[in-house]
Amino acid sequence: MRVTTFGEVMLRLTTPRRERFNQARALEMTFGGAEANVAVSLAILGDEATFVTRLPKNDIAEACIQELRGLGVNTRAILRGGDRIGVYYLEAGASQRGTTVTYDRAGSAITTLDPSEIDWPALLAGNDWFHFTGITPALSDAAAQATRDALKAARALGVTVSCDLNYRKKLWSPAQAQATMSQLMPMVDYCIANEEDAEKVFGIKAEGAEIEQGRIDHDRYIEVAAALTKKFGLKGVAIALRESFSASRNGWSGLFYKDGQACFSRRYEIDVVDRVGAGDAFGAGFIHSSGLKRTPQQIVEFAAAASCLKHSIFGDYNRVGRSEIEALLGGDGSGRVQR
Amino acid sequence: MRVTTFGEVMLRLTTPRRERFNQARALEMTFGGAEANVAVSLAILGDEATFVTRLPKNDIAEACIQELRGLGVNTRAILRGGDRIGVYYLEAGASQRGTTVTYDRAGSAITTLDPSEIDWPALLAGNDWFHFTGITPALSDAAAQATRDALKAARALGVTVSCDLNYRKKLWSPAQAQATMSQLMPMVDYCIANEEDAEKVFGIKAEGAEIEQGRIDHDRYIEVAAALTKKFGLKGVAIALRESFSASRNGWSGLFYKDGQACFSRRYEIDVVDRVGAGDAFGAGFIHSSGLKRTPQQIVEFAAAASCLKHSIFGDYNRVGRSEIEALLGGDGSGRVQR
Amino acid sequence: MRVTTFGEVMLRLTTPRRERFNQARALEMTFGGAEANVAVSLAILGDEATFVTRLPKNDIAEACIQELRGLGVNTRAILRGGDRIGVYYLEAGASQRGTTVTYDRAGSAITTLDPSEIDWPALLAGNDWFHFTGITPALSDAAAQATRDALKAARALGVTVSCDLNYRKKLWSPAQAQATMSQLMPMVDYCIANEEDAEKVFGIKAEGAEIEQGRIDHDRYIEVAAALTKKFGLKGVAIALRESFSASRNGWSGLFYKDGQACFSRRYEIDVVDRVGAGDAFGAGFIHSSGLKRTPQQIVEFAAAASCLKHSIFGDYNRVGRSEIEALLGGDGSGRVQR
Amino acid sequence: MRVTTFGEVMLRLTTPRRERFNQARALEMTFGGAEANVAVSLAILGDEATFVTRLPKNDIAEACIQELRGLGVNTRAILRGGDRIGVYYLEAGASQRGTTVTYDRAGSAITTLDPSEIDWPALLAGNDWFHFTGITPALSDAAAQATRDALKAARALGVTVSCDLNYRKKLWSPAQAQATMSQLMPMVDYCIANEEDAEKVFGIKAEGAEIEQGRIDHDRYIEVAAALTKKFGLKGVAIALRESFSASRNGWSGLFYKDGQACFSRRYEIDVVDRVGAGDAFGAGFIHSSGLKRTPQQIVEFAAAASCLKHSIFGDYNRVGRSEIEALLGGDGSGRVQR
Amino acid sequence: MRVTTFGEVMLRLTTPRRERFNQARALEMTFGGAEANVAVSLAILGDEATFVTRLPKNDIAEACIQELRGLGVNTRAILRGGDRIGVYYLEAGASQRGTTVTYDRAGSAITTLDPSEIDWPALLAGNDWFHFTGITPALSDAAAQATRDALKAARALGVTVSCDLNYRKKLWSPAQAQATMSQLMPMVDYCIANEEDAEKVFGIKAEGAEIEQGRIDHDRYIEVAAALTKKFGLKGVAIALRESFSASRNGWSGLFYKDGQACFSRRYEIDVVDRVGAGDAFGAGFIHSSGLKRTPQQIVEFAAAASCLKHSIFGDYNRVGRSEIEALLGGDGSGRVQR
Amino acid sequence: MRVTTFGEVMLRLTTPRRERFNQARALEMTFGGAEANVAVSLAILGDEATFVTRLPKNDIAEACIQELRGLGVNTRAILRGGDRIGVYYLEAGASQRGTTVTYDRAGSAITTLDPSEIDWPALLAGNDWFHFTGITPALSDAAAQATRDALKAARALGVTVSCDLNYRKKLWSPAQAQATMSQLMPMVDYCIANEEDAEKVFGIKAEGAEIEQGRIDHDRYIEVAAALTKKFGLKGVAIALRESFSASRNGWSGLFYKDGQACFSRRYEIDVVDRVGAGDAFGAGFIHSSGLKRTPQQIVEFAAAASCLKHSIFGDYNRVGRSEIEALLGGDGSGRVQR
Repeated sequence: MRVTTFGEVMLRLTTPRRERFNQARALEMTFGGAEANVAVSLAILGDEATFVTRLPKNDIAEACIQELRGLGVNTRAILRGGDRIGVYYLEAGASQRGTTVTYDRAGSAITTLDPSEIDWPALLAGNDWFHFTGITPALSDAAAQATRDALKAARALGVTVSCDLNYRKKLWSPAQAQATMSQLMPMVDYCIANEEDAEKVFGIKAEGAEIEQGRIDHDRYIEVAAALTKKFGLKGVAIALRESFSASRNGWSGLFYKDGQACFSRRYEIDVVDRVGAGDAFGAGFIHSSGLKRTPQQIVEFAAAASCLKHSIFGDYNRVGRSEIEALLGGDGSGRVQR
Repeated sequence: MRVTTFGEVMLRLTTPRRERFNQARALEMTFGGAEANVAVSLAILGDEATFVTRLPKNDIAEACIQELRGLGVNTRAILRGGDRIGVYYLEAGASQRGTTVTYDRAGSAITTLDPSEIDWPALLAGNDWFHFTGITPALSDAAAQATRDALKAARALGVTVSCDLNYRKKLWSPAQAQATMSQLMPMVDYCIANEEDAEKVFGIKAEGAEIEQGRIDHDRYIEVAAALTKKFGLKGVAIALRESFSASRNGWSGLFYKDGQACFSRRYEIDVVDRVGAGDAFGAGFIHSSGLKRTPQQIVEFAAAASCLKHSIFGDYNRVGRSEIEALLGGDGSGRVQR
Repeated sequence: MRVTTFGEVMLRLTTPRRERFNQARALEMTFGGAEANVAVSLAILGDEATFVTRLPKNDIAEACIQELRGLGVNTRAILRGGDRIGVYYLEAGASQRGTTVTYDRAGSAITTLDPSEIDWPALLAGNDWFHFTGITPALSDAAAQATRDALKAARALGVTVSCDLNYRKKLWSPAQAQATMSQLMPMVDYCIANEEDAEKVFGIKAEGAEIEQGRIDHDRYIEVAAALTKKFGLKGVAIALRESFSASRNGWSGLFYKDGQACFSRRYEIDVVDRVGAGDAFGAGFIHSSGLKRTPQQIVEFAAAASCLKHSIFGDYNRVGRSEIEALLGGDGSGRVQR
Repeated sequence: MRVTTFGEVMLRLTTPRRERFNQARALEMTFGGAEANVAVSLAILGDEATFVTRLPKNDIAEACIQELRGLGVNTRAILRGGDRIGVYYLEAGASQRGTTVTYDRAGSAITTLDPSEIDWPALLAGNDWFHFTGITPALSDAAAQATRDALKAARALGVTVSCDLNYRKKLWSPAQAQATMSQLMPMVDYCIANEEDAEKVFGIKAEGAEIEQGRIDHDRYIEVAAALTKKFGLKGVAIALRESFSASRNGWSGLFYKDGQACFSRRYEIDVVDRVGAGDAFGAGFIHSSGLKRTPQQIVEFAAAASCLKHSIFGDYNRVGRSEIEALLGGDGSGRVQR
Repeated sequence: MRVTTFGEVMLRLTTPRRERFNQARALEMTFGGAEANVAVSLAILGDEATFVTRLPKNDIAEACIQELRGLGVNTRAILRGGDRIGVYYLEAGASQRGTTVTYDRAGSAITTLDPSEIDWPALLAGNDWFHFTGITPALSDAAAQATRDALKAARALGVTVSCDLNYRKKLWSPAQAQATMSQLMPMVDYCIANEEDAEKVFGIKAEGAEIEQGRIDHDRYIEVAAALTKKFGLKGVAIALRESFSASRNGWSGLFYKDGQACFSRRYEIDVVDRVGAGDAFGAGFIHSSGLKRTPQQIVEFAAAASCLKHSIFGDYNRVGRSEIEALLGGDGSGRVQR
Repeated sequence: MRVTTFGEVMLRLTTPRRERFNQARALEMTFGGAEANVAVSLAILGDEATFVTRLPKNDIAEACIQELRGLGVNTRAILRGGDRIGVYYLEAGASQRGTTVTYDRAGSAITTLDPSEIDWPALLAGNDWFHFTGITPALSDAAAQATRDALKAARALGVTVSCDLNYRKKLWSPAQAQATMSQLMPMVDYCIANEEDAEKVFGIKAEGAEIEQGRIDHDRYIEVAAALTKKFGLKGVAIALRESFSASRNGWSGLFYKDGQACFSRRYEIDVVDRVGAGDAFGAGFIHSSGLKRTPQQIVEFAAAASCLKHSIFGDYNRVGRSEIEALLGGDGSGRVQR
């Protein structure tokens, strides 16, 4: 399947060994961003994945592109220019101490792009799928405009569109998010979300859901999915369900709501190595499996298994192959040694 | 609040990645010691914390002082002289393999101090609180004498005094401990202890308590606290309650016994990163919260939450701010990502 | 006790911090191999352990021998020659992602040895025990011949012989294994195995056992042990029982079947640091304890405790002393700090 | 001596082991900036050094402040606010490959300060010396205004002022630099510069100087110093003279021109560990020694020796004490072991 | 320019920090091999570089391919199959201690390829240049046959061919080398060599050359180049001239002999970070510059400058861009900081 | 040759990458001490080397013994007991910044040994050589007594004795050194020294020698050697001649004075990786080569070459084999790659 994603990729600087910033003498250097993460996952799964972004002409951006290209992502559509690559600092938590993320992404190259620089009809021609998240239009007016242009081109070309709501309160207010996203959602086929996103962006809140306590109430999530579907005429809604017992231990499963049916995946008990990017891994699993025309149940199982494995891998990218996901789907979550 | 602590700070050399000593090629270099740990916690929590010790004039001691000063501790009262900084080697355990500590602290600078060098009345003037642990008087006669002098000055100045019993069998015998500590305790307001301490130092043992099995029997701990209170006319006793399931997993909570009332904190299930210094973090939380004139229940909850978070941080020092403790107190122990 | 083991020792290259191979910039360098691991454990436990293998004349092999010698293993019987030391690449898993092992051992020095180079009667004279695993005869015809020669010499000298079946599907087929091992087993006193081994090598399968699900069905294992005992006239069979909940968490216990009696050890819940070599640690614990003429129950408890602790140590070797095992046997699995 | 410096401090991210950015998996985390570097040097040399800047309220800035405080710098005047701490990426060169610096400092907290927030008369009261570099006024109009305010206050209070020209072509053009700096220089007592600075900022170029070839032509530098002195009525000019043979080897010496006399220091042949910050170390040595009322020759010797040693230390800060500088001044540049 | 190279790429395992093997606890993991190194250099310089080899289907080979792809090399023609990736262990020397290389490449995937698997005419169609070294035909008969096939196809298509003699005594004897290489050389246009190669492979030895002493005698090298040219009707011969003063310091320059003219490059004094791959960087510089139709003097200067910079970079690959080489050619070898 | 050495071995803690102590977050962990270093060198060179010391019963000492045993040293005569292993902290210098050593060895296990515990006649029976340095008798009266006992036993058994003066001003005064060493020297056959030692211990100073400037004046050293020989009736004196240009670059050579003849070795220009232990490597080379009955010129050449190579190796131990030394002696100091 040919898939294009559009968004920002940042330098991620992580304190080693779950250290606090004032203990660290070095920072682990990786790269990541919601849409880049999806592109990497898809490339590893065997799809033809193109990632569109804008990056400055410097050595750090070069290193980022090299890694993406090495992982199989088509990087030829990446625009070069602007002043800086966005940065985010990550201090991985443990036990009761949560992971903290400090963004330093203002003024990054993608925020100052000229939307007319991207010829979306040419870029998306021959594509099967286009994916973005709510982060991209939140970055700047230019980025929002480019997203709109992309969606229009995708619609015109019959390319399937998915959007992960990904609400980020540091980028925009709920009101701003709603104003912009409400324009975009009618051009979207599949929405990926969590309950908090739906509430923050569209005021859709299931009664009584208590995500703080880590309990999953299936009915509430079905309500949210149904409301989103109805509001925007979506083909389906996929929701990743995280139960945060602590920074070290999570429960994890997924829901795919389509045609009035709600399919819940198997639930995993996870010892967390790195949970950042797990939502993107879920989205990528969803897209990949959808491309294979699997049943809704198969799709959500694949998405949940792929993203379950992401938790065991350092960095934003889900460096997991199809055979590993299929082994987990086939029932082997025992972590036995593969000799 | 202005607080002064007095004791030894050592170079801590930890094998990396839970390695055994005969695997290690490098040792992590941090510093710590019961009273220094308390001072650091208090400084981070916003108190004016002064740490009194004696350190030699060499580069290792200099590095230790620089770190303390950087963390906000007032280091101006540290005496310089003597031959060496004490050292302790730490091999962090995992699962059923316990953490091992090898002390090499004999002859350290603090043990050979001249008690008359410290002008306690001047040092403690204007202070609200003085804290020490049972380790300091165990170090040498000179250190014991300096501790006595400090307590007398504190009494005279109306400074509140807390003592963490902290019995160390490699430093002295129960008989020696009892002889010395019995003299000091009447000048103490608040005692911090664990059951083993109370038994070893004062022969106070609750019937039937079985800490080896990791079960916490609330009644037994209340008995111990009551006995300590009565014996020394204390204002209160705080006890940290650890349930050691393995080196990787612990239960953790606290008790504050005051005015005949026993307040138990919430209990935490912890994935241990580094448990050394957790008792000191408990003591610091207790002192800080006491200084804020909170209720006994609030005090023990604050102390337990602060020290719960310590388990997630490498090194002796509890690098945790008030807002993080308050978030945990407010119910968020989910370890969710803070973006 | 004087014990000799015979087999291959390899360079083990492990990705650091559970990284995937395409993330790693360095590989941890240790050494290991089933029979070398047993020799190291025995040397640390105080036995006179001699390890026989063949290694090339190069710096990597030299480093391997130095480490073995440092750990107390007698390395004087190691033959030098051949082209290469075998290598195995290890990517440690986490949570649902299993550990993967990639072997690169073809053509290693031991596979091209000349069996006549080893004077087994001289080597084994004065020995109490000889140990090998099913890996050694699988390496090459020459290695199989040398194993046969060793067993004949051991028999002639009255040396007790143990064999860990250790079936490796990448080295030979079940048919090949059966053909070779069936010749050797009659010269064996004690067999160490897991159920999968017994099935793959000898077609001995207990009905209904479901190791994939991690459940341990005691009766099934007794059946397997009884069948093995009967088939080859063994003195006893020891089986390590692993319950793989995930790559991070395992249950662990052991069975020793002797004289028609089945003794099961205590069961441990383990947070896994490194599970490779745990079976060898079990074997070494079994051999060491057998040499002390303990009861079958004591023997299996010692073997299980020794190998339980192995899971907490990085690398193939079980760097655990007798006092630590005895403390665990004595009931202290709490992982408390040993000051 | 009481000294205040004003400028930006950045997070410095250095590739380890002289790696290129596309090889690095981690970046060394230190902090630095011209005026902060001077403050640290002075604090280590025993002066009361205050550093004024503006930093955001986040964990990275906190870590920066902690390190400065630990090193003895007074950080109480640091303003907190703004969006980000500036970043600079450093790839250390070797042999013929030069070190590269990639700045990402636009929009940092200091650039958006409100000049009226700083009460310079209060801050500088009681100070002996104020130091800044040409970087600060280049950062933003607000920073330039704050610099002007500082100089006016210093003048009014009789505080000696030094300025290191430090021309940075990525921050402003020569024309911009000249316009701004020409206003400030009349309020400066001592100028620290290199020939390139003088030419770029003020068009002062000695005839025939060929710094590209690494040769030092003393007469040319005297010309430049004399011209600067004359143009702005300076009390003196200090110039650090670098001969860049390669990224690994440099020649290093200094010139202090005062009262029509030119004093050149001893010349050092240096094996470079880290040359960034050497100019600042020279400036700090100059200031410290000037404060001690030494002769011009003594002053330039001290400055050159201090900054010579800086080249042997990783990071921007010159972690060198007075006794080490004096030993080098006393003739011991042999690098012998100090036992 | 479109260039294809053919040869082996290996896993390179380097002891960190110039440690000896018996000190190392980890090995740096990079990849390299003469022809892969050339392909990487060319890709970074902007040529379309295709690398042909055979690699097994495992994670280590995958990581190797990902890195090559990331660096811009076309990896689509890489065959997948065989048992193992070749390995070489490297202990970097210092001062008088030379670097040691231990090869473990026997039986690697490329040695067991089926020459008929590669459709050279299709692969080389449209190419401008084909490059190989004397290592490839030395690996196995199959590899030698594939090389012959490649050269025939190149000839037929009019593709320019270059060969770096690269004699490796551990792969074949001089007699074997001569027998094979004498067949191949008539199909080669440009030969890259060092004097030792020419002597070992073809018995061409200049009188009196004394490379052991590190002195370069220009006349001798011209003799060798002339003899090689004459013997095989070459278009030209390029020779890299190393002066090994120690493992830390080398002199470096190049010679290009063409049309009876000998052009020597500028000579560099180098502080060595990593000299492995410098000869390949020289070859790549030669090929790239030849493709630009530069003069012989320009070609040898470019090749020498490119490979001079290689010495400053860890790993086999010359991670250096055209602008950096041109800056060095332009006279800036001063290693000054590029801000 | 069978050789025994007697002295202290310490834990050496080195800041990584030439960092200052206040930058370090970890310390490299190795072991070393003058006499242990000699024993290791001799074992690697093929002699039967026994090292006698006293070490406490803890994990750090265990790790030390394991490494010595691994390197081939006979450790069976090491006494176990006492409180601590001595420690020394090392900050490696660079360029003009010298290496600093901070000792923390007071009260180490060897200082509190009971001389009667060592049965020297039994230990030295069958030995060819006994070696100690001036450090051992300086440690404590008990250590001095044990040294005396050893020398008496050696004399009685006809074992050759060598002593490296190794004056350490932090252990004793010149007067103390002279008093003790004057008793011991008459029992010594060969003295190893540097000029400073001879002057400090015995007041033997050559006129005009100026080692501070790094120049070697051959005549002065011959004078010193002759004076030492005469004073104590020695068979010969060996002196290592260091020229300290900087911490990064040294000149190095040796002198062996015997029978009125002075043999100077070749002189090496060294890029220093780690110079600590070079003197011990010289001593070991001297002893080993003496044992082979080489000529004085051969002996000093071997000693100088062995110790030249030591400078390229991290840690105290000279991990260099005979073939490497012989290659250097044979003229290859070019540091070329050994493939």
